Amino acid sequence: MLLFWRSTTIFTRKLVKIQIIQIGKYKNDNYRELADEFEKRLSAFADVSVTTLKGADGALPRERIIEDESRMLLGALEKVGGGGGFLVVLDDAGKQFDSVGFSEFLGKRKDNGDGVIFVIGGAFGLTDELKGKADLALSLSKMTFTHQMVRPLLMEQIYRGFCILNGKEYHY
Amino acid sequence: MLLFWRSTTIFTRKLVKIQIIQIGKYKNDNYRELADEFEKRLSAFADVSVTTLKGADGALPRERIIEDESRMLLGALEKVGGGGGFLVVLDDAGKQFDSVGFSEFLGKRKDNGDGVIFVIGGAFGLTDELKGKADLALSLSKMTFTHQMVRPLLMEQIYRGFCILNGKEYHY
Repeated sequence: MLLFWRSTTIFTRKLVKIQIIQIGKYKNDNYRELADEFEKRLSAFADVSVTTLKGADGALPRERIIEDESRMLLGALEKVGGGGGFLVVLDDAGKQFDSVGFSEFLGKRKDNGDGVIFVIGGAFGLTDELKGKADLALSLSKMTFTHQMVRPLLMEQIYRGFCILNGKEYHY
Repeated sequence: MLLFWRSTTIFTRKLVKIQIIQIGKYKNDNYRELADEFEKRLSAFADVSVTTLKGADGALPRERIIEDESRMLLGALEKVGGGGGFLVVLDDAGKQFDSVGFSEFLGKRKDNGDGVIFVIGGAFGLTDELKGKADLALSLSKMTFTHQMVRPLLMEQIYRGFCILNGKEYHY
């Protein structure tokens, strides 16, 4: 009976789905390796997936890059979103949380059975059209960070959030 | 005459002194490599130096680690500070700037001829005594970031600040 109970527990444990869609290849392996490390740790708590799209042609004018990249992201969202996930765009001017508040946000999504889709734009950001589709604009800081740095930062904060929710001590 | 004017310009150009004192060895080379990269770029604008102190014994109780590490940092400050620099401690609960505001802060220090000393504590933070000695408590975010991640982040923001002051385009 104990064996049966255990296996049932394993099969019914449904992890919340966390999807990250980001644009522009990594310019530096350090960002990738840090993001990968936190993604691996996060996978204990969430069904996490990351999609990295190739960015727009860097020789194009700034406005055109924003438009092209936002269109690519919208295309990817149609594929992966499937209408179910809570859509968060990263935006300097968005809502700020402290880490406990962010963990509560993640906990609510989990309780509602929603997945969360995070979109990280490129160096010049996103169109208003794409921002308008989001359920939440999230700001990690009043300061402008590079979009490459935002990737490990966000992954670490999601991991930290789930550590807080699960009462797991985590200090660095 | 032109040659003479040029050499004078070179010898009288005095770079503002930026000192960073941080505690705890790097746990991961990715943080170090990113911080080093931005330090190298920053050295075009500032006379930058970084001192990394060995952290307290990790087996000690949390409060004891905070006390020990703050004492080590105070000792290092006495050595390097020399009474001249403007002292900034990194603290989640401190003042937030946007990147332009932070560049203005750096510009003011430069105009005043002050150096700036930034102190980044360890995983558990700093004593109130050390915080009380600071001219400014600076928060990079409402969120809690790892003290290791704060190193490249801060270096990048200082570099970004000097790029803004010097009208140098910089997008990532």
